[in-house]
Amino acid sequence: VRLLSLARDLRRRRARERQGLFVAEGVRTVEELLASGVPVRGALAAPSLDGTPRGAALRAGIAERGVPLLDVSDAEFASASDTDSPQGILAVGEQPRATAADVLGRMGESSCALLLDAVQDPGNAGTMLRSAAAFGAAGVIAVTGTVDLWGAKVVRSAMGALFRQVVAHASWEEVDAALGGAELWGADGAGEPVSRLHGERPGRLVLAVGNEGAGLSADARGRARRLVAIPIAPGVESLNAAVAAGILLYELRPWRAAESSRP
Amino acid sequence: VRLLSLARDLRRRRARERQGLFVAEGVRTVEELLASGVPVRGALAAPSLDGTPRGAALRAGIAERGVPLLDVSDAEFASASDTDSPQGILAVGEQPRATAADVLGRMGESSCALLLDAVQDPGNAGTMLRSAAAFGAAGVIAVTGTVDLWGAKVVRSAMGALFRQVVAHASWEEVDAALGGAELWGADGAGEPVSRLHGERPGRLVLAVGNEGAGLSADARGRARRLVAIPIAPGVESLNAAVAAGILLYELRPWRAAESSRP
Repeated sequence: VRLLSLARDLRRRRARERQGLFVAEGVRTVEELLASGVPVRGALAAPSLDGTPRGAALRAGIAERGVPLLDVSDAEFASASDTDSPQGILAVGEQPRATAADVLGRMGESSCALLLDAVQDPGNAGTMLRSAAAFGAAGVIAVTGTVDLWGAKVVRSAMGALFRQVVAHASWEEVDAALGGAELWGADGAGEPVSRLHGERPGRLVLAVGNEGAGLSADARGRARRLVAIPIAPGVESLNAAVAAGILLYELRPWRAAESSRP
Repeated sequence: VRLLSLARDLRRRRARERQGLFVAEGVRTVEELLASGVPVRGALAAPSLDGTPRGAALRAGIAERGVPLLDVSDAEFASASDTDSPQGILAVGEQPRATAADVLGRMGESSCALLLDAVQDPGNAGTMLRSAAAFGAAGVIAVTGTVDLWGAKVVRSAMGALFRQVVAHASWEEVDAALGGAELWGADGAGEPVSRLHGERPGRLVLAVGNEGAGLSADARGRARRLVAIPIAPGVESLNAAVAAGILLYELRPWRAAESSRP
């Protein structure tokens, strides 16, 4: 029962921050969590979990790992769930604590980190985390004003990428102190077309993407050495923020130089 | 009151198909609808609409265009709404009826069309429509098994792109009959890296993107002349489907050849 009230409590950002915990919900997300090595405090299951072979296998996997599992009613589960159609499983995990310095310290000579500058939509933030992992980013930094990366919807949308990447919440001051030789670029519709760069980029690149409606903050603009844009058709207002971030991460992927030197 | 029951009815795909109507909900979506020239049958407003200057301006805009507006209570509005936090405005529009032949007939000598092959998530479908508009696609074809492009969430996620693009629902037989000189390519993680093509593509390209979980259907694979992939880091399972579609549309944008011939 303590686990049920804990899971309910963790729907609030303040509680997640204070306890350093988060909730992973749904069959696939909990599977990814178990596979990742992130410490798991316990899990809640509703009767509906056992309705599919995959759900039943997940229950067995949880038991095998010695993770405490509490069976609750569908109504109790719904009271802790963040989704409209719960799959009957959620797990409480420990947030791997990382700082901006941890993320930037992981950057090799040709590397990228993604910086979320007041991104507000949790689905977008999760999708960006997934793209960052796909394009070899050293990690992701969420600066003040960004949605909590450990919120349930971000965790779900990241599809496991959150458990395998180094992610940090940080202030701009912490970013400044950690930046070292890395160069910050900003995504901005009025910037230079990223396609014209033909992959040219600094060895250590921090790519800042801004808020869905307002774009980059003054803080990000003031620090950006370059603003880059994705050329789109005239008369079209903009791309979805997560799509735009994905295209920029793709264009600026660290292994691009090696690719084009092949025959 | 007829408008209220109509809006409620239009939450069902069958009703939308039978009546050839759709619902656009939210301040921005209704603004985009009014600006697009798509015929509007009427609008429903709740008291909350007038709480913001932008909402009040929208009410005036609707009246100016002579669109019938019905004021309902918050509870009545919620009964027709598709969102968790309604903004107090929705409008009923007429689906512009287009066929696969209409979409493919609009393709110039260097053009692209997007084909949705059993894409299921309405947010992904709407985001893909938005990307297709941004990268100059002639239109979008949703083949059998794809989510209804006129569902409320697709309409919202498309951010107006749906009202400005030629979109069609079609069977594979209709696609076959309309394909003409266009070449169909499929998005597939095991295909050739799209980055190696350096923008080489047929003049008329139909790009098929598959279901979020299952990928391309056998129908699409059987028709695809080429399968293209986005190279991602080892150990990462996949990109979000809408991000992947966005990157491919970007890489294969019709104006790319003209871009790289510039100094």
